[in-house]
Parts: sequence; structure tokens; C-alpha cells
Amino acid sequence: MNEIIAKIMDHRSIRSFEDRLLTSEQIEVIVQSAQAASTSSFVQAYTIIGITDAVKKAALAELAGPQSYVENNGHLFMFCADLHRHEIVAEMEEMDLSEPLESTEKFMVATIDVALAAQNAALAAESMGLGICYIGGIRNHLPEVTKLLNIPSKVIPLFGMAVGYPMGQSEKKPRLPIENVYHENEYQPDKEKFIAQLEKYNDTISGYYRKRTNAVRKDTWTSQMVGMITKKSRLYMKDFVERQGLNKR
Amino acid sequence: MNEIIAKIMDHRSIRSFEDRLLTSEQIEVIVQSAQAASTSSFVQAYTIIGITDAVKKAALAELAGPQSYVENNGHLFMFCADLHRHEIVAEMEEMDLSEPLESTEKFMVATIDVALAAQNAALAAESMGLGICYIGGIRNHLPEVTKLLNIPSKVIPLFGMAVGYPMGQSEKKPRLPIENVYHENEYQPDKEKFIAQLEKYNDTISGYYRKRTNAVRKDTWTSQMVGMITKKSRLYMKDFVERQGLNKR
Repeated sequence: MNEIIAKIMDHRSIRSFEDRLLTSEQIEVIVQSAQAASTSSFVQAYTIIGITDAVKKAALAELAGPQSYVENNGHLFMFCADLHRHEIVAEMEEMDLSEPLESTEKFMVATIDVALAAQNAALAAESMGLGICYIGGIRNHLPEVTKLLNIPSKVIPLFGMAVGYPMGQSEKKPRLPIENVYHENEYQPDKEKFIAQLEKYNDTISGYYRKRTNAVRKDTWTSQMVGMITKKSRLYMKDFVERQGLNKR
Repeated sequence: MNEIIAKIMDHRSIRSFEDRLLTSEQIEVIVQSAQAASTSSFVQAYTIIGITDAVKKAALAELAGPQSYVENNGHLFMFCADLHRHEIVAEMEEMDLSEPLESTEKFMVATIDVALAAQNAALAAESMGLGICYIGGIRNHLPEVTKLLNIPSKVIPLFGMAVGYPMGQSEKKPRLPIENVYHENEYQPDKEKFIAQLEKYNDTISGYYRKRTNAVRKDTWTSQMVGMITKKSRLYMKDFVERQGLNKR
């Protein structure tokens, strides 16, 4: 296993950071690493906003949870799917692109683009001995987040990323069995085998929690998933995304 | 610059591969690297399908372009956003999750999840001296692709990735100026500055093409973008995604 794969495999989310800011050089390398990722048809459909203003960080920490590590970290990045740049491009080229930019396909392109970039940023940060945590919680309150960050139409802040010097270590959660996630030539056709894999995984996950919590917590992966999904969270998203001028047609 | 960041920065898409297959160990490490990425609320909402069947590879190469490197490579991965697994989870837990799984939010979660995983896979492959190319072209014909791969409801193949031993080297295209992509504390408010950045970038890109093509090709980034976006491609996507039971509410 080479050094890069070892670092990839060693990933865990870090939610507690030393009181030590990233340097502007570190931030620049992280953003440039993000930009080095593949991008669909060279579209580069994302913007990254670094939050240094203490009032804004505190507000985002509140909106995302509250989650203290959104406020207390070495640097806070916000990753936005961005097709507003292409509206400006259209103006520069004296064209009207508003309709095609509103398509579901273009929304998918921008969402994939920003996630590829973000994962490069995550790994670049981790390679420097920093820890990271993705902040999906900002999607709890996107209308407030977009207002706070002065986000124009055709832009959606998809997630944040808190980066910093790790305070303590967290554990790596075991992933789904590889045979459940990786299929050959077609989608796994055997449902019983599929369920057996998930049952085995449930044992792994409840064992993981039992061990970590002195047998207090015993939940399985499937029970966690059902609990999370039945919360029906963020049901405003479809309307919100459409109001931002994306995913409309 | 450490070895990991050097590898991230050195990325370029490879579209021509030696006639040499990946080993099953290499494939396994790539998939495990994908699985090590962060995942929203531990949802792991993706499936990766490895295509080894020559007939299927040829069909996908045709559907995606035609693009010969989809057929001729060391291994072909298909990355799918997957909430079908969670339908099965719901059955196992005797719950009905069909409505919440149909939300735009969950579609975004799955799309982000699979992209984070894919970028880890890309980097793991590149760390082993392999080259990669994302294949967004499969989205030209998703009804045919889903049929070919026996894809169930709540699953969307988002992109492929051709991996293999690079034949020759390709060049790295210069990215948008960092100040255009990275803003501080709020979305860049100054539109004139923004346009000036894009104009400067246009010079960079047309210079890049002039140099590579002996001044035959001179296109700018903004002209490329307008050309690509006015093609209005993949307008079936919204209906297709909804028919797969995603992004509906």
C-alpha cells in the first residue's frame, strides 16, 4: 500500500480542532488541489467560500446544528455548486443561457463537479496532517445560509468543510462489505444475497458501537438508516433549488 | 509540496491506455479507497459496477460517444447514485421509506456521496501509476445504460471511469484563476472584477490552445462554455431521474 492509499484509507472525520488557524499558504494549496480535480467538459461549476469572519462562522455553526466545530476550527470552507459564473459568461458572449442552465443535467454536473473538487481538498488537507469534517448540516437552512453569504441565483452552497489541527483522534467506522457496493457487469441481481450482506454488516456495526460505548449503544446500520430517513428532513429543498434557478427543466 | 499534493496537482485525464488489465487486487484497493471517503450521515448511497464483459464495454463505448477509451482500458468502473439499497433496508426494517427517498435532498446526498467516493478512487488509481478518465458521456443515453446494467429504481449511473496504464501523456489544462473560484466571507460581490478575471483567463486558455495546435485552435473558455451549454444536451434528464424514483419531491 503506497502512502497516498494509506492516507485515503486512514480517513476519519475530525470534529474537534486545536485553536490554530491555517496559513494563507495552506488555504491556497487546498483550493488549488480542489481545482486540479476533473471537471465535466471543463465547466468548473463551483465556488469555494472561505469563512474568516467570526460573526458569520458563529451564525453558520448555529444554522448547521448547532455544531461547535463549524465555529471552532483552523478554517471553514463552503463548497457551492455554481452556474452563476456561466450566466456572466453568457453576458460576456452576448448569449442567453438561462434555460439550459436550469436543467437537471446541469444541476447534476455542478453537484458532481464541486464534490470531486471537495474530496481533493479534503485529501490535500489530510496530507498536511490536518483533519476535516464535511458539514452537510448547512442544508438544514439554506435560505439563511445563502443570505448570509450573499449567494446569487444559480448557486447552491452544498456543504461546508471544517479543517484544522486535530484535537484527539476519532475512530474509523467500518464501511459496507465491498461485495455489497461493488458489483460486476450488472447491478447485483440476487436480493437474498444482498440482504444477507446487510445483515452481516449490521452485526459489524452493532459490534462497533457496543465496543465503543460499553454496550450502551447497539444500533445496527439498517436501523440507523431508517431513523435518519424517516426524519423527512429538508423537504424544502426541491422548491429552494428551483427558486435558485436550478434543476427546473 | 508533499507527495500527495504533488499527485493531486499533476492530474490530467488519460484517454489512451495500454492493452493491460488491472489485477483484482488493484480493483479491490480502488473500490476500498472509494469507500473510505466521507459519506453523509453514514448513508453510503452508491454502487460501483465494474464492467469486464466485452460486449457490454463495447455497447457502453458506443452509448457514451462513441469513445474508444470506454472500451479499451485496464478497467471500466460505473459510479451509480444508489438509494435502492435503502429501499431494501426499509423492507428489512418493515418500514415504508419510498416517499422520503424520493426527495431532491436525498438525490443530492447520493450524488455528492458517489462523487466523493469516485474522486478517492481516481486518486488511488493515479497513486498506482494508472491514468483515469471520467466518462460523463454515459449520461447521453441513460435509459439504455440502465437497461444494459440491470439498474433498479432509485439508482442512477452518474458517470463512468476508465482506468488503465497510460499510453503517452496528455497536458494539464490551466484552471480558472484562484481568485475567481475562491472568495472570502461572501460570494464575490464585484461583477466587473469577476469579468476581468474571466477575460484574463480567456487569454490563458486561448494561449494554451494556440501553443498546442500551432495556432489552429484559438477558442476562449467563455466561447467554449457557451458552445457547450447551448447544445442543450440531455434535456430528458429531469423526467428520467424522476422515473427512477428520485428528485421527485
